[in-house]
Amino acid sequence: MAEKRVVECVPNFSEGRRPEIIDEIVSEASRMMGLKVLDVAPDASHNRVVVTMAGLPEAVEEAAFRMTAKAAQLIDMNQHRGEHPRIGATDVIPFVPVSGVTMEECCEMARRVAKRIAEELGIPTYLYAKAATRPDRVRLPDIRRGEYEGLRDAIKDPARHPDFGKPQLHPTAGATVVGARPPLIAFNANLNTQDVEIAKAVAKAVRESSGGLMNVQAKGIMIEEKKCAQVTMNLLDYERTPMARVLEMVKTEAARYGVQVIETEIVGLVPLNALLDSACWYLRVGKFSRQQILDLSVE
Amino acid sequence: MAEKRVVECVPNFSEGRRPEIIDEIVSEASRMMGLKVLDVAPDASHNRVVVTMAGLPEAVEEAAFRMTAKAAQLIDMNQHRGEHPRIGATDVIPFVPVSGVTMEECCEMARRVAKRIAEELGIPTYLYAKAATRPDRVRLPDIRRGEYEGLRDAIKDPARHPDFGKPQLHPTAGATVVGARPPLIAFNANLNTQDVEIAKAVAKAVRESSGGLMNVQAKGIMIEEKKCAQVTMNLLDYERTPMARVLEMVKTEAARYGVQVIETEIVGLVPLNALLDSACWYLRVGKFSRQQILDLSVE
Repeated sequence: MAEKRVVECVPNFSEGRRPEIIDEIVSEASRMMGLKVLDVAPDASHNRVVVTMAGLPEAVEEAAFRMTAKAAQLIDMNQHRGEHPRIGATDVIPFVPVSGVTMEECCEMARRVAKRIAEELGIPTYLYAKAATRPDRVRLPDIRRGEYEGLRDAIKDPARHPDFGKPQLHPTAGATVVGARPPLIAFNANLNTQDVEIAKAVAKAVRESSGGLMNVQAKGIMIEEKKCAQVTMNLLDYERTPMARVLEMVKTEAARYGVQVIETEIVGLVPLNALLDSACWYLRVGKFSRQQILDLSVE
Repeated sequence: MAEKRVVECVPNFSEGRRPEIIDEIVSEASRMMGLKVLDVAPDASHNRVVVTMAGLPEAVEEAAFRMTAKAAQLIDMNQHRGEHPRIGATDVIPFVPVSGVTMEECCEMARRVAKRIAEELGIPTYLYAKAATRPDRVRLPDIRRGEYEGLRDAIKDPARHPDFGKPQLHPTAGATVVGARPPLIAFNANLNTQDVEIAKAVAKAVRESSGGLMNVQAKGIMIEEKKCAQVTMNLLDYERTPMARVLEMVKTEAARYGVQVIETEIVGLVPLNALLDSACWYLRVGKFSRQQILDLSVE
């Protein structure tokens, strides 16, 4: 039995205030077969909506294109104001392998969609993250530098030419970034202390940016309603830097202050493999195959 | 999104030597929609076959009945010899809740099938395990006492009367035991020692029968090809006595001898929930819902 083929896609659109516009864009995906829209998260101050959908690769790829076409009709970047950096009506489209699909296949999806958006919609596109063609295009902030307004001139600089399309912004839809990345896991650890400085010290020790574990973003915050300090984390690549290893490091660093992790939270979605990897690591299971899972074997 | 409804059923038939007979019985299930036959394990010395199937409750219930009817046509208990205790052509039919189904629903399935086997096939039936009507019918050995040959007379004793049907064995198919039980997990822990006595001591400490954890069967054996001693276990109720708690106790008991668990094995099938419970326990996740699992949310 093969693993079911599932790709997640989390496109971000530059509209977070007008529900009727958001509905029109989302309905391009929700009426399609072979995928599900799992979450629609608009943010008024960012004036931006983050849509989470998942399903068959072919369906997700087509939906991402149709949503981009619809957003180009409905959003005028010349009128757009919001706190979040952005360069286009459809600002960024990441494809995420969930199961039965490789990262390389998601990169191919990204390249096909980026090419099609440029050719059929006249919107210049950049490839980012695992699909990036150049090291200075791996990170979104590097591509978004100057934002929509600044990119209008900057795009003429050969260093800022798009990967697909002409070096000229679409007059209303701007430009779009398309790419592939691993699933992101929002993972928080609550400590049995109210001293937020300890959570900050632990966060600093475990995160990539200050010398800790790769693929981990972390900060220390206070959770007032639980009266405890929390290490709040994003795990950007659970296959290379797994949940178990991150938690064990948080426990070790907290123990240095005589503090323990009393509870963790997984916020939102998590790939099944991340949990199976955790179970097998902690249970010390040598060889294991998903085919041994009773519930999944009857699909 | 509701959990998918899945019941496992592991009927045992008194034929382990003639593949054509086994095939005929198994094909009653394999040609049905809504279930899959996951394993067929014949044993010549036991002269018995263990079939593992899983799927929709209605399909699994119907398949169990049809297989019993077919076995009654093909197997003559008067001719049957084998090492494993047995009382009928279809010896035992356990229903196992896997997901989206309660134990009580599996008990109802057992009662319906047991009644139907008695009424439509003329085979007396006993209810066992979670479906047992009396404490002396919870365990299979108590019901099988005397086996097919001895039960012919013993069944007339009111204490041995069947739960359904007349107190009289079917002339060729004998009697059948039907019931419901939790999924069984075969879980082995390899120790970094070649001293099998340590594995035996750990097994004795953790198992129910000698004062250890409920729902755990364990023994210590030597694995020659790996040159290590092993605690080999059956976990009979992972919800009440979870994998993590069992492994932690094995680790603690082994540590008393300066020995560690270096690897574990899950043999055969395991319910997804058993692994998710393990992941959440070790990762210290407070609240978690299966709906957060990306792959499963798109079904």
